[in-house]
Order: sequence, then structure tokens, then C-alpha cells
Amino acid sequence: MASRDQHGIHPPFADADGKRRFGVIGKPLRKVDGIAKATGQAVYADDIQLPGMLHAKTLRSPHAHARIVRIDTSRAEALPGVHAVITGRSMPIPYGVIPWTPDENALAVDRVRFIGDEVAAVAAVDEDTANAALELIDVEYELLAVYLDPVEALENCTDAIHPNPKRPERGNLSKRVELDFGDVADGFERADVIVEDDYTFHGTTHTAIEPHCAVATYSPDKLLTLWSATQITHYVHRALARVLELPAHSIRVIQPCLGGAFGGKSDPFSLEFCVAKLAMITGRPVKMLWTREEVFYAHRGRHPMRLHYKTGATKDGKVTAVDAKILIDGGAYSSFGLVTTYYSGQLLTGPYDFPAYHYDSTRVFTNKPPCGPKRGHGSVQPRFAFEVQLDEVAEALAMDPIELRRANWQGEHTKTVNGQRITSNGFMQCLAEVERASRWKERRGKLPFGRGLGVAGSMYISGTNYPIYPNDMPQAGIQLKVDRSGLVMAFTGGNDIGQGSNTVVRTIVCEELGLEPDMVRVVAADTDLCPVDLGAYSSRVTFMVGNATIDAARKLRHQIAGAVAAEWEIDPGRIFMGSGQVFDLEDRAKCISSMEAFQIAEARCDTLGSTGAYNTPTLGGDYRGGTIGASPAYSFTAHAVEVQVDVETGRITVDNCWIAHDCGRALNPMLVAGQMEGSAYMGLAEAVLEHHDVNRFGLHAGPSLLDYRIPTSVDTPELHALIVESLDPEGPYGAKEAGEGPLHPSIPAISNAVFDAVGIRLRHLPFTPGKVLAALRERRAAETAVGSAKESV
Amino acid sequence: MASRDQHGIHPPFADADGKRRFGVIGKPLRKVDGIAKATGQAVYADDIQLPGMLHAKTLRSPHAHARIVRIDTSRAEALPGVHAVITGRSMPIPYGVIPWTPDENALAVDRVRFIGDEVAAVAAVDEDTANAALELIDVEYELLAVYLDPVEALENCTDAIHPNPKRPERGNLSKRVELDFGDVADGFERADVIVEDDYTFHGTTHTAIEPHCAVATYSPDKLLTLWSATQITHYVHRALARVLELPAHSIRVIQPCLGGAFGGKSDPFSLEFCVAKLAMITGRPVKMLWTREEVFYAHRGRHPMRLHYKTGATKDGKVTAVDAKILIDGGAYSSFGLVTTYYSGQLLTGPYDFPAYHYDSTRVFTNKPPCGPKRGHGSVQPRFAFEVQLDEVAEALAMDPIELRRANWQGEHTKTVNGQRITSNGFMQCLAEVERASRWKERRGKLPFGRGLGVAGSMYISGTNYPIYPNDMPQAGIQLKVDRSGLVMAFTGGNDIGQGSNTVVRTIVCEELGLEPDMVRVVAADTDLCPVDLGAYSSRVTFMVGNATIDAARKLRHQIAGAVAAEWEIDPGRIFMGSGQVFDLEDRAKCISSMEAFQIAEARCDTLGSTGAYNTPTLGGDYRGGTIGASPAYSFTAHAVEVQVDVETGRITVDNCWIAHDCGRALNPMLVAGQMEGSAYMGLAEAVLEHHDVNRFGLHAGPSLLDYRIPTSVDTPELHALIVESLDPEGPYGAKEAGEGPLHPSIPAISNAVFDAVGIRLRHLPFTPGKVLAALRERRAAETAVGSAKESV
Repeated sequence: MASRDQHGIHPPFADADGKRRFGVIGKPLRKVDGIAKATGQAVYADDIQLPGMLHAKTLRSPHAHARIVRIDTSRAEALPGVHAVITGRSMPIPYGVIPWTPDENALAVDRVRFIGDEVAAVAAVDEDTANAALELIDVEYELLAVYLDPVEALENCTDAIHPNPKRPERGNLSKRVELDFGDVADGFERADVIVEDDYTFHGTTHTAIEPHCAVATYSPDKLLTLWSATQITHYVHRALARVLELPAHSIRVIQPCLGGAFGGKSDPFSLEFCVAKLAMITGRPVKMLWTREEVFYAHRGRHPMRLHYKTGATKDGKVTAVDAKILIDGGAYSSFGLVTTYYSGQLLTGPYDFPAYHYDSTRVFTNKPPCGPKRGHGSVQPRFAFEVQLDEVAEALAMDPIELRRANWQGEHTKTVNGQRITSNGFMQCLAEVERASRWKERRGKLPFGRGLGVAGSMYISGTNYPIYPNDMPQAGIQLKVDRSGLVMAFTGGNDIGQGSNTVVRTIVCEELGLEPDMVRVVAADTDLCPVDLGAYSSRVTFMVGNATIDAARKLRHQIAGAVAAEWEIDPGRIFMGSGQVFDLEDRAKCISSMEAFQIAEARCDTLGSTGAYNTPTLGGDYRGGTIGASPAYSFTAHAVEVQVDVETGRITVDNCWIAHDCGRALNPMLVAGQMEGSAYMGLAEAVLEHHDVNRFGLHAGPSLLDYRIPTSVDTPELHALIVESLDPEGPYGAKEAGEGPLHPSIPAISNAVFDAVGIRLRHLPFTPGKVLAALRERRAAETAVGSAKESV
Repeated sequence: MASRDQHGIHPPFADADGKRRFGVIGKPLRKVDGIAKATGQAVYADDIQLPGMLHAKTLRSPHAHARIVRIDTSRAEALPGVHAVITGRSMPIPYGVIPWTPDENALAVDRVRFIGDEVAAVAAVDEDTANAALELIDVEYELLAVYLDPVEALENCTDAIHPNPKRPERGNLSKRVELDFGDVADGFERADVIVEDDYTFHGTTHTAIEPHCAVATYSPDKLLTLWSATQITHYVHRALARVLELPAHSIRVIQPCLGGAFGGKSDPFSLEFCVAKLAMITGRPVKMLWTREEVFYAHRGRHPMRLHYKTGATKDGKVTAVDAKILIDGGAYSSFGLVTTYYSGQLLTGPYDFPAYHYDSTRVFTNKPPCGPKRGHGSVQPRFAFEVQLDEVAEALAMDPIELRRANWQGEHTKTVNGQRITSNGFMQCLAEVERASRWKERRGKLPFGRGLGVAGSMYISGTNYPIYPNDMPQAGIQLKVDRSGLVMAFTGGNDIGQGSNTVVRTIVCEELGLEPDMVRVVAADTDLCPVDLGAYSSRVTFMVGNATIDAARKLRHQIAGAVAAEWEIDPGRIFMGSGQVFDLEDRAKCISSMEAFQIAEARCDTLGSTGAYNTPTLGGDYRGGTIGASPAYSFTAHAVEVQVDVETGRITVDNCWIAHDCGRALNPMLVAGQMEGSAYMGLAEAVLEHHDVNRFGLHAGPSLLDYRIPTSVDTPELHALIVESLDPEGPYGAKEAGEGPLHPSIPAISNAVFDAVGIRLRHLPFTPGKVLAALRERRAAETAVGSAKESV
């Protein structure tokens, strides 16, 4: 007998034998927007042209830290072609993407905090005029002490970057989290080996190919419409209402097609407020497109961290305790920094089970571009340090690094030491996959000098339960519409940022209603048309919007199957919906098209529509206990990488990267593989190429894609995506995340492979040729010393 | 105790004393698109500009009736700048807005049927090039007999305009309806007076200020999108799928802001198919904008009719029988002609009760632009004839024309002689209103020669149950979305054609959820975003979409009030929602904003959305019995008009028009008054100014707004809108239609006023100065003859 769902209806695509077979789930369907993008028809924010549109530009601070004494915009306002000039006085209400740290202003009100901080904006008939007007704005600054180094900023604060009159002792402290789980002292006591070292994670940025861009209109009946290259439509909506003092219902925010985001478009940005305000003032559409240089200033890139790790293990490789002390360079504003500080410790506690864990993370303000979330938010840096340290533990114990990781696997359906609920866990299969694919056993430690294999593992979240509202609301919501044309429309607030979330929504609707892909269209990320969804971050969209979609689609399936069954006077359990058809399982000659079935349902049930929502179950851990926004499920990844180290030049070449990722069920293996490859590619870039820094005045050293290097296709290794499907009980059809987790092991795996290749430990990112050569020299010196010592014995 | 609705919740805006008071219903709220239109920001079809867009033009037949022997498009195709040329061969599948009479083609396949019939279309880089290409298309025609007069066409058909090989005896017959109710012979036998005469209704057209315009795109993933100045999005969608042989789900039809329609945009039109096909062929956006001249060719204006009426009445003015014979000049195609033929008899049977009725209506094809529905579809012409005839009956009986009409009132909650169910009926109050306002009793028959008062009455439908689908579906559907921003979105397939239906939808949502108008936005007439609705015709939108909106909004109200009640731990009956607030009726200090209430409901009930639908109740009458698409309610109107007749020039000046209209409840009195005034204005225009005819070759005599005259503001009389509210039990809050009914009495009331002014009966439209002078001469001759006769006695 076929299994039935809650409505007594067969799951879609269950065959007559009752075995569940998927229709479109698991198939490599192409993206909903693939053809539009490939043919150039996709409309990005900068493609929007409106009649009478003005162009806006931003005046940026030339000082890293200064008080604004006076701004005179009169000469700029007098320039022909200029329609409006605004400063911080125009929008004095502060905001923050995290409501508890509202320390940003659309334009600086009384103080600039980094070179590039936004001071004023001009709307003019064209960009040239706007730029000319910027030159005419006179700003008088009073310079303040500049803090570029986080230790200095913390220990030696005289002019706090964010003065806190009530708690002056905080100085430049942004956030500190110190938490203790299990008996750490005992753990180290029980250890046979203890490894302790310092690690450095440099800052990196997202380098989405599309720069930030926003267009606003303000209608005479006071509707503000903003198109923005954002991945968090809802948060922008919320922030606009606050800063512009408008009722939320009078604002519409739309995300057009997005040219990459990677976390770099998940804050509300100055340009969004500026075009809105300028549109309100001028009554004309206003566009602002940031240059690449401006993106480097305004970016919310990955935080630089200085990490100190200490790990104890017994002889059999079991980790007994981990102690971490992390100093986070936050840049000039909070952004998501509160979360980053938690995440820097919280997300390390898998895929390995260790009984004792202490971490102490401190985020510090400095006078540099603010840092925020980048793919693998807050956890890529500690993961790098810890996975290198685990390799050192394996080395100390003379254990195979893969075996060491196996020995510490935490298992399925368990809890981490800090209380995070683990459900499915395919990490052991991930390890097995990379071991097999890389021919680890026959090659690791056995390749010629200069070539090596390295491994690393990781765990990441699939969305978070993020209670930013006083009244809870669904974490994800969707609305569907069905009519006699045979078309199903899905309205989702989720943001498709290239990861393919709209394709996932379409696929799920098809699966549940037995449709072909062209019978479903998705409208996304338009606050007017779509229910609230929190956006694309924390790898939440497939998981949360996916579950909401199943919820909404099953309600419709119940109606439609019920109506057809009533029409045919059979039990609803006999109704099968698949491949655009609906038929009677016990009499297959009874077969109609989905469109006909919709028409029957419409006649019997009236206009067809539904909503769906998803909320996470009650999860282990809590805020105070160190679990901010616990995830309903966790993904697991293992990488093996093969590198060559040129000992003459110090250049590291990554030849192969085997990426085994437990994504639960791969709803679309082509999309999953794309995310896995993109993640590994990005990790590789961060390891060996990317680096940005500021000079002694706080000026960005090279804000361009010529100076800031990302890999070309020539630089990219062979990327082998090995999908591991653990089928999570909470995920949609068992799915978990795939977009961020697979980045984590790339960087430590490269370091570990370099060790296998040439015997040096790279603990300080980026792995530049200079650092490699220095380490090689040091190693040779040490060997020589040992050799001399031996000789001298 | 306050009355409660089905959910146990107070009706909105019931006050603490339980008395129902409306919040926004009945208030003169401005239109949702009023400011956008007034400030030029509304986007009409011709405002749409798309990158790479081509412009299309149509080649039209220079012959009124001919066979197409050969079309050679090669020279046109070779013209630089031409992208595609299509002919009837490109789209050979016929269609018709009425599915039972599919006699049209997007472009003529083998025959042209009137001068202006569409033969070919060209898409080119601009309109000039497209026009030049039209000149290069060689068409060889074989001329056929031309039928311009309907009697001739019917009686003397050798080359049927629509040959029917199976039933050649039909000739040029389009449709005939002959029906008999009651004992007509007996009725005339009982009559004390019988009046019998001929009447003529000329053809008129809609003269919407916006000409027809359509833009299409065809995406590389095969989605056809059409923006069209249409009032029937859904029918266009349906016809495109048929003619282009595309699955309906791959087509999206959107109505942009519309610059008037009046029934003239309620057929699928050639340009819609042409731009779609040309976009499919070229892969580029294609626009076609018709010139004013083309609109005169392609229009589906009001049918010319020749009407013969015979009415019998007893001495006390009670009508005993009516016999009508009507010849309808259909022009070249069926359009809605099947319905027109029914309506020409069916809708006369109110507001007067007569026991016996016979009518015989015949629609004939002629080689002239096809006729279709215009404001007051099919019933304005018989109403004119009958209301003039009633005046003649009153004259014959020496009764006051208002008293005669009172004597025949059919009453409320009754059935017409042909089985139409009458519910509310405010006609008596309408008569009283115009009698009072025009100071009828003291002025009618007593004004100086050359000035006069006239009266007329009428009845019209509020939507129809129109079963065009094999499976029934809701006659109207709507979907709502609510979220924590405080905004409610309404998605309606109904077409706002300027009549304000989107404003009505917004008002109803506000009423039910206790919101201020700016908290509701309406998305309308987009087949992707909105549920199916049949469109704007038959005065159906306020009634049917309005009822669907109440249905959808009440579901949400139930959820929201229930959630707030649960939050406050009180009975839901105590929840009051109004003016953007929600409070406890028994403790008014407990008060939150609607936005907060939505947030509570979202937290408790998950993502909030609903659908609503409306279906008519089972109604009296049936198709065979002469009731095609019976209406769930009928509106009633009486006009009194005051005219001056210049006996020197024959010019009629209408000074005042008192329009009393029973619209049920006036949901928005400003919109209702606007519809009443616009209707009367249009009737006036048809009576004294408008006229179009063709020359002896079938060429339109003056296809321009210089030749075809519509009144300017200077020509427009004082229009006095006197709203009568009968509160219909089936209408939304008691509302009925207001957009078409008030046109009907204008024309006969003018004729009747002219009789009062100068003693001539104008039975043949239009009332040109020539006709007036001729009638005056005739009257003087007759008086002279009588005088002579008297003298000679």
C-alpha cells in the first residue's frame, strides 16, 4: 500500500507500488533565470532607466577618523544640473542591520570613522555633474586619533570611535563573548599531547562582479519604491522605514537580478537611503551606482582575526579540550559583528565531538572599512586555525589526519558541547569520499617533494532561528496562486542572489503538484508582491523557504487532488499528480492534464491560492549559552586538496580540490555542485591570492580588481564536487545547505597540503610566495641546525 | 448587543452600541490612480519603451468585400529596417470573443469584409519604415458584392460575407432571436390606446481618448508577455493561446493604465495577435499603436438599429403589451453580436411591468466596421425607442409622462415578464428625485416655446453569470496578502478602465480590515500575478469583484481578530477594527495599530493570505427563454432633461440633465457621480452630435475627431447626479452598477424634452439641426393644414 501524507494523498510521484519516486527533485534542471542571464535579458539594478532619472554620487571622507566641524553645500547646490545635496543632517536617525547595535548613519552626522566613510550625496542630471558637485562641497574636519591595529585600538583608546558616554570604559570594544563548556582544565590534564599556536586570518572581500547599485522613485502619492542590489530586501525595507521616518506600508523594496552578493549585500547600505531621500526631495527617480573603488570602501568583508588555539588530545587522537582566544578586527562599524563574535566560537563545535571548550572572542572597532558577513560568516577564520591545528595534533601523534578526524566524529542525532542540536551528519562519508577520490592512502606523504595532499573538515548552519522581532513571525513565508491557465505562481520574499533559490522554489512546487518546470513562475524579493522573508543569508533559503514552499504547495495539492477525486468519485488516495498530468492510480486510462485538474478544483473550491510558512523547531542551546540563532540542521564538508609548491618562487599551485559535501538531499545536483565549486574556488582565492590592507593613514592599499587579485579560470584548480546526501529529517525532502559550508575546509586543507608537500606550516594568511619562501628558509635553517646538532652529538 | 458576522466577529466599524457604521464605504475617497494620472506618471501602453523594440503597422483592405487572391510580401521584407512581415497565413486559426461565433482572424486569411479589415502587418525599426513597407506589399483582390444596408444584405445576398456551406440559406444573417412572453394578442386587445412607430438608432463609437495599443515580448525561454490597452485581460489571454497555439501558462497578459474603453476594448483585437506573433518571429519587443483613423475602422461601436415598436395601454396608463421588431446592423464580424441580439429584447423588461411582450431581433452582417458592445450594450437603442414611445402613449392618454411611468412600475423582489429576477428597485425614488429637482410639476408643459422638459427611465444589469467554460469557475476571484509592514496587497484580475474598480477593491479591503486607504495597494489585470477574473464589461466589476473582495477580506479579518483576541484573552466579539487601529470594545484603552495586529496574527497564524470568489446565485430565466447571462441585480435610472431648441437653426441645446440613479449603495459617491455624469454626457453626445457612416463604397465618411464630433466642456450641460440607494441584498454592502445604466435614459429624455419644447417627435437619431428643422417645417405645415382645415370648416 502506498504511503500517504497527512491529507491521505499519495506523495507526489509515488508510483503504483507505493514507492516514492521523485519527479523533478534530484534532477539537474536549469536555473529559472539561466536563459535570461545568458542572453543578456536579465535586468540588473543598473539596467533600470526611468524617465527624468537623476544620478547620484557620494562624497567620502579623506580622513580615517575625524569630527565634522562644518559642511557647506551651497557651492555644490548652485552648480547647474544639481538637483539636491544631502548630508547626515538630512537623515540623522542611526540604524544597524542588527537592531541592538544601531551605530551607522546613512551619511556621517558628526564624525567620520574610516577613509571612504560617506559624508554627503548629490543628485544631478548625470554622474559627471554629480562628481563635479562633490568637489564643491566644503567640509571642515577636526582630526582624531586613528586606530588601525585592533590591539592598539583596544589598549590605547583615547578617542573612542563610537564614544559611549555611559560606559566609557568600553573604549573601542565592539563585542566580547567568552564562554566555557565542559571542564577545560580537566581536558588538558587528560591530554597526551597539547598543541598551541597563533594563526592569522587576513581580511578579504566579496568581489561580487556587480557593484552595489540602487534606484529610487517617490510617487506624488507618497509611495517610495527602491530597487537595490541587495540580498536582504526585508531588512532594507525595515531600515528605510526607520531612517526616513516613513510608515513601512508606504515603502516597496525590490531586488532586481543580482550579479553576486556572497554576504556583501546583506547590510542596508548608504546608497539605498541616499537615493530614497534624494528621490523624496527631488520628486524624480534617482540612481546611484558605486564604482569598484567605492565597493572596496563600503564593503562588509570577512573580518581579519588573530586566533590563538590550544588543543589537547589523547594518544588515540581523541580531542580532550579546545581553548581559543580570538581578536576580531571589526573596522569602523558594527554591521553583523555581534553575530560574528558569537559565530567565531559557536560554530567550531562540529563535526568533532570534544568534551571541553572555552573561547574568548573580542571584536574591536578600528578606523578601517567595516567588516561584516562573507560566505561562511564568522566561522571560516576559526575553522582555518583549528583544522591546521588538528593537522598539527595528527603530526604530533603521527596519525593520519583523516584518521584523526574520524576518531573525533561526533555522530548523528546528538548535541555539540555548546548545545547545538545535530541531526543528520554525513561527515564520515565526506571523509571517505575525499580519501577515495584523492587516492589519499596511496599518495598522502608519498608524493615527491614539492607536491602534497591536505585534508580538512567543517560544519555549517542551514539557516538560523533569528528572533529579531518582539512578536515572533514565520522565519520564511510564501504565497502561491493557481488558476485555470495551468500556471502556478510562487511569491517568495527569499532573495535569489545567483545561488538558485528561485529555481529551488519552482522545483518544489513542481514536485508537490506534479508539474513540469515551465508551468511554475516565481516572483521573488519584492516587498509589495511577496510575503515577508528574512532574505538570503546564513544559508537559510533552500531550507526555510523550501519548507515553506512544501507547506503551501501541499495545501493546494490537497485541494486539487480532493476535487479531482470528488469529480471522479474515487478515494483521494488514488489520485496521482506527476509530469503535468493527474490520473487514477487504479485506472490509468483516467488521465487529465494538470490544467484540467486546476479547472476542476477551481470550479469546486473557488479561486485557488495558499500560503506556506516555516518555523524552526525548538532547538538546543540559547543566546546566553552561546548559541545565537541555532540552526535546524547542519551541513558537513571535507576537502582534500593537492598542491604543488614551487620552492624557487614560493608560489603555491592548487591542482585538485576534492569537495565532499553533505547537503542532505541534493534538490538539484547541478546547483549544489555549482555552490560547492564556487565555495572552494573562493576559499582558494582567499588562501593564496586575496589580500587587502590599508596604509598607515588608513587608506585602502589597492581598491581595484587589478590590485586585489581573484583567480581567473587559469588560476582555478580542477574542482571535484562529491555530493554526499545524508537526508536530514528537518530539511525539505532532507535537504540542507550547500552555498557556504563547502568554503570552510579549502583554506586549512591547502595549508595542510603545503605541509605534506614541503614540510612547512602556514598559519598566517594569505599564503603569499614571500611567506612560503620565508618558511622554507626557516625550515632549512632548522634542519641545518638539527643536522649540525646531530653532527655535533 | 452588537450584531456579529458569520465568524462571530463584529462587522467592521460597528460601534459599541452595535450599530453598524461604515468607515470608508460611502466616503468620496479619491481614486487609487488619481494622482498618478493627474501628474502624468501613469504608464499607458504607449508609454512602454523596451530596448530593441520594433514598431509594427497594419496593412488594411481598401475594399469593402473581396477575396484575397494573392499576397506578395517579398518587396516589403527586402526593405532595410523591416524585421518581419506577417499575413493571415501566419495565424490561420479563427477566434471570437464569444466562443460560439469564432469568425475573426488576426489577419484576413482569404477574404476582407470591410474597408479597413486587417490584411498584413510589418515590424520594423520605426513606424515610418513599417508604413513604407506596407506600401510594398502587393495584394491581389477579387472584388465581391458589397453589402452596406442590412435589409439589402439580408434579402439580396449573393456573396455571403461569412459563407456557411452547411447552411447557405442563412446568407448574411448573423443571429436572430424571436421570443414571446405572455399573451401579446390579448394585451393589444385590452388596450385603450396603441402607439406604433419606427425608430432609428444610428451607429456610434466609443471615442476613448487612448487609441488601442499593444506591446509584446517573447523571451528566449518562451514566455510571451503582452501589454495591451484592453478591458478583458483574460479573454485576450485565452484568445492568444488559441490563435498562437501556445499553452496558456506560457502567456502573460497585462493591462497597463487605460485611457478609456467604454466597451471598445472588450474584444481581442488584431494588433494584440500581431505584436505577439511578430515578437515571436523577431525575438524583439514589438509595439503597435493604432492611429485614430484605425480605431474608427477597428472599433466595435454601438450597433445601428432600425426599431419598430408597438405599445398598448389602458386608459389609466397601464401598458398591456409590447411588440418589437428590430433589425441590427452588425458590420463585418460577430464580436459580441450574439449577446447584443438577445440584449436588444431582453433588457427592456424593467423598470415597467408589462404582462405581454414579443420581440424579434435580427442581426445582419454588412461590409462595414464590425459593431460590438458600447456602454449599455444592446439596450441603449431599444430603450431610446421604447421611452419615446411611452411618451407618445402618455401624450395619447393626456397623462403626465412621469405618472405614466409610475403607473407601470414593476415593484421590488419580483420577476420580469421574461423571467429576470428583480431584487432591489429604487426606480420610484429615481422618478421622484428628477421630478423634484427639475421642478417638473411647475415647469413641464409650461415653459416658453422652444424650451422643454423630458423624462425617461431604464433598467440595467450588474454583471452577468456568463458560463463560457465547460467547467464552471468563480465569476470573480481575488487574492490578498498581508504582512507585518501593515500593508495589504490585493491581486485582482478585474480591469480598472477608469471607472475606479481598483479604488472599489481598496475601499472594501479597508472597510473589512479597518484600514486607512494608503495601507492597501491593488495589483490588477495581470494574468501572472492575479487570479482569473472575466474583466470589465456588463457592469460586473464592483458587484462581482467587490463581493469576492469581501469574501477574501473577511477570511483575513477572522484570522486577525481571532489572533488579537487570543493574545488579549478576550472574546473575538470584542475586537473592533477601524481607522488603522484594533481595540477592545469593552476596554478602549486596549488599542494597537493594524500593523501590530497583523504582526500578532502573523506570529500566531503564520504567513497571512487569502483568496475570495464570487458566484451568482441561481437566477430566474434561461438562455432558451431569452435570458442570456442573467444578472444578480439590476440598477434603475430616471433622467429629466431640459432643452432649448433654436427654431431658426434647428440646434438643440441641453441645459440641464438631472440623473437619478439607483446604484444600490454608493460605495464611493464621487465615483458613482462621475459614472452617472459621464454616462449622461455620452448619451447627450450620441443624441445630438455623434454620427458615423460610410460612403457608397463602404469607406468611413470621417474617421477623425474633427469629423466625428464629441462634446467639449462647452457643449456639456449642467449634469446633476442624484444618487438613489436601494441597498441590494446581493450586492457588496448593497451596491449595484453605476457605469452603464445612467446612459440609457439620456437620449429618449432629450427627444421627449424636444417634444415639450417645440412639439416635434424625434424618432430618428441623431437629432441633427436638419432633422429638427424638417420636423418643425412638417409640424408647421400640419398646423397650417389644420388651421386651413379649421378655417375651411
